[in-house]
This record gives sequence, C-alpha cells and structure tokens, in this order.
Amino acid sequence: MTPAQARARFRAGLVTPTAGWCDGFTQANLLTVPRAQAWDFLLFAQRNPQPCPVLDVLDAGAVAGPLLDGSSGDGDVRTDLPLYRVYVDGEQVAETPEVRDWWRDDLVSFLIGCSFTFERALGAAGVPVRHVEQGVNVPMYRTSRRCRSAGAVSGPLVVSMRYVPGALVQTATAVTARYPAVHGAPVHTGDPRELGIADLDAPDFGDAVRPEPGDVPVFWACGVTPQAAVVESRPPLAIAHAPGHMLITDARDDDYLI
Amino acid sequence: MTPAQARARFRAGLVTPTAGWCDGFTQANLLTVPRAQAWDFLLFAQRNPQPCPVLDVLDAGAVAGPLLDGSSGDGDVRTDLPLYRVYVDGEQVAETPEVRDWWRDDLVSFLIGCSFTFERALGAAGVPVRHVEQGVNVPMYRTSRRCRSAGAVSGPLVVSMRYVPGALVQTATAVTARYPAVHGAPVHTGDPRELGIADLDAPDFGDAVRPEPGDVPVFWACGVTPQAAVVESRPPLAIAHAPGHMLITDARDDDYLI
Repeated sequence: MTPAQARARFRAGLVTPTAGWCDGFTQANLLTVPRAQAWDFLLFAQRNPQPCPVLDVLDAGAVAGPLLDGSSGDGDVRTDLPLYRVYVDGEQVAETPEVRDWWRDDLVSFLIGCSFTFERALGAAGVPVRHVEQGVNVPMYRTSRRCRSAGAVSGPLVVSMRYVPGALVQTATAVTARYPAVHGAPVHTGDPRELGIADLDAPDFGDAVRPEPGDVPVFWACGVTPQAAVVESRPPLAIAHAPGHMLITDARDDDYLI
Repeated sequence: MTPAQARARFRAGLVTPTAGWCDGFTQANLLTVPRAQAWDFLLFAQRNPQPCPVLDVLDAGAVAGPLLDGSSGDGDVRTDLPLYRVYVDGEQVAETPEVRDWWRDDLVSFLIGCSFTFERALGAAGVPVRHVEQGVNVPMYRTSRRCRSAGAVSGPLVVSMRYVPGALVQTATAVTARYPAVHGAPVHTGDPRELGIADLDAPDFGDAVRPEPGDVPVFWACGVTPQAAVVESRPPLAIAHAPGHMLITDARDDDYLI
C-alpha cells in the first residue's frame, strides 16, 4: 500500500495504530498550534532534538506540504491521520478521526520524526520488535527527565520502550543511532526507575508489551513529548495525532539514514 | 587553548579566521535578526538543514547560552567572535570586531553548525585539509541551487570547497556523513559548473586554495547560506560572523558525531 492509499483509508474513517504500515515510508508525529504559540514550540523542538526532531513545518494555515502531497497532491493533515487528539488550554477535549471543525487559518503544523521509522531497520538487523509481533501499540511513558524549556513551553521527556534481547542491545543501539532525524540512539537501557518509570506494564500512552526471557527494556525519546508539553504549557489550542496513530508521509525511511 | 580563552582573545580585539583553533571544540556560524523576522529565518533553517543546521537559538535579547557560557560564564555573542558583518536592509554596512553598538533587546541569535567541526576528523582519517595546510580561509561559493524558501526568506545554497585526493573522496564522504549537525556529507563532488560555479580560484567568500596533483574539488553545504538569504531577503537588520571568523563554542565536535 502506498502512503497516499493509506492516507485515503484514514480519511475515509479507518482508525488504527500505524506501526508496520507502508513498509519503508516514514511516519510522523503531528503537532499543530496557533501561530502565536508556534515560535515557542519550534524553539522547544529545536532545543530538544532527540524527542522533537522536526521533519517539516507547514506554513500557517497550510494543510499539506512536500512530505504529504502524495501522487494525487491531495494530502491534508486535517483528515489523513487515523486519529487525533484536540487540546484546549492544555486539556484534552476530543479524540476524533478528523479535525476540520477545529481548523483555523493561523494554525501551524509541525511534522516530527517517529521511531516507527527505524523499526524496519531493526527487523532487518534481526532485532525483534515485540509490539509489532504482539499486534499492539508501542508503550510510551512520561519520565522524570525535563526537556529544555523555550519561552512558555516546558515539559517532561516522553519515551517509547522496546524490549530487546540482551545480546542484541548493541545492535539495536547501533542501528537506531544512524537515524538521528527520527529519535536516533536510545536515551536509556535497563532499569526504568532511572527514568522515573514505576511500572512498565502501565504505560502512559499505548499498550503494555510482554517481554520474552532475556529481554531488556530499551528506551527511545518519543514524539509524544510535545503533547506532554502542551498539557503542561496550556496553549489555547493544540491538535496532535493520537499516540501511535501517525501521519504516513511520502518520505522514505532511507531519506533519514546516516 | 580553551574556547573561553579564545573568545577572550577575540573580545580583546584579535581578528583572525578560526579554522584550526581550539582542537576538538565546535565552531558555529552566527546569524542574529530581530524577533519579527526570526520565525521566517528559523523556518528557513528548518527547511534547509544541510546548509543551516541549527545548534542553538538564544532567547530574544540574550547574548549567551549553553553553548558559550564558558567556565567563567561570561560568553557574549556581541563581542566573542573575531569579526562580524552587519547588514541593514540586506546591504552590508559594517565589518567590525564587535557589535555592541548595534544590539537591541529584540534580537534573536542563531548558532549554526560549521564544517570546521569535521576537519579534525578528516585529518585523523588521513584526509589533508588544504586551506589549513596553506594557512588561508576555506573558499566558499554562491551556487545556482536554490534553498527552500520560508515566508519572506529565500536565497541560494552557499557551499564550502575542499580539494581532496581522488583516492580519499570516499573517506571524506564517509567521515563527514557522520556529522549531520554540521553540514554532513558533501552536496557535490567534481565539476563545479554543476553548481553554477564558474571559477574555483575566485571564491565569493574566503580565499582561493591551490590543489595538489590528483585533487578533486568536494563541496559541502555552508553556514554562510543564511547570509546570502539576508542579502536577498533584506531584513531591516542582521548581524552575522564574517565568513571563516566563527564563534568557538564549548560544545565538543564529538557531541555531533553519529
């Protein structure tokens, strides 16, 4: 399935996590805020490139751009993700399959790299991806680590977690380090308490995953971090993807390989 | 010499290109514009990460930040570079060793990665760096390639050129690719006319360099690109480093190694 075909299915109403979709094409986190708040959010992303690697920023009011024009040129960030979350003053007020009713001409959309991009490379290197094997969404956790703030925007680091067989942690680290635009190398391996995570079976976003014997938890910076910053910083309006329900772009994973 | 010591010498009035200074510490391009123009310039940088890899953005009015606080905490972007260029409405109106008289509280400073950062790695890999050998500034050229524009900001790609022995072009490419935050892999190798460069001996910035027999010209995206965009886009005020006269930061080259 091409990215344009996938987006058309989501536009038609299909709601599903996108891990494993459109092999070889880059998936992105979405964050949309009013122009008045966009400077602080762009600075926040710039200052926290590991959780917030910006792949593109659309012009104010624009609903498409080079990464999602598709062969038909009909990409639309208001409808082309399977599920959105809408925040007003930092409170989530809706989870909805499209956000046309919320759209304003001053909204600026950030497309932020997603670690799903390197999962194909992990698989190709022989590293099992448990949440894909188990058919669930990747587990994500708020941590006790703080991001660098920017103006009015502040928040904690959010991470995704993948269980990796102990013998393959080095491989997983080396493979993902070569994708700095989509979170890059892990931020932590091993004891979750070092990140202030009390219980791996109770993720803040996504689903719990069962480890196999010998698995070690490995943590990568996560593009849900900007949503945690929205909750803390309370902009008047923010639109984001629902965790795990990403924008599938026309960019190829290999475009971000070093 | 430490970066803080080098900055103190420049603050005291020393004017010199900085290639080869403070081995192992990252040098940065400077671009300072009013807050009213900063959004477009930050978007321009975001959309052109190879020539404009943003290492940090200071808050409006701020003259220091994490990359140049120094052991003494006295970093100051208004005085700590050896030479500046000041532009008013896109026209260069001054080349000066400090810019305190031009400072305003609404000025936002961008620190942009510089290819000097990977020159130590090139040397360590056995790739000669001719402009350092010859004691001159690296040659830089405006090209016929256009950057992606952002709002009012547009301009051509500017490149730096290093002559590399033909047998070492692969090495130079592989080494620099691992530094995506400081321009990364070359944008072009060989015929300069492909980039619209008529005469390698007449660089637009910096100095001409003599090739050795068997050398091939290799071109990297250059952090002077934002200055070319200033000339074309004519913001009311812009302050930048004089080409080759960089900000020496406290960050280490290895911080940007993938």
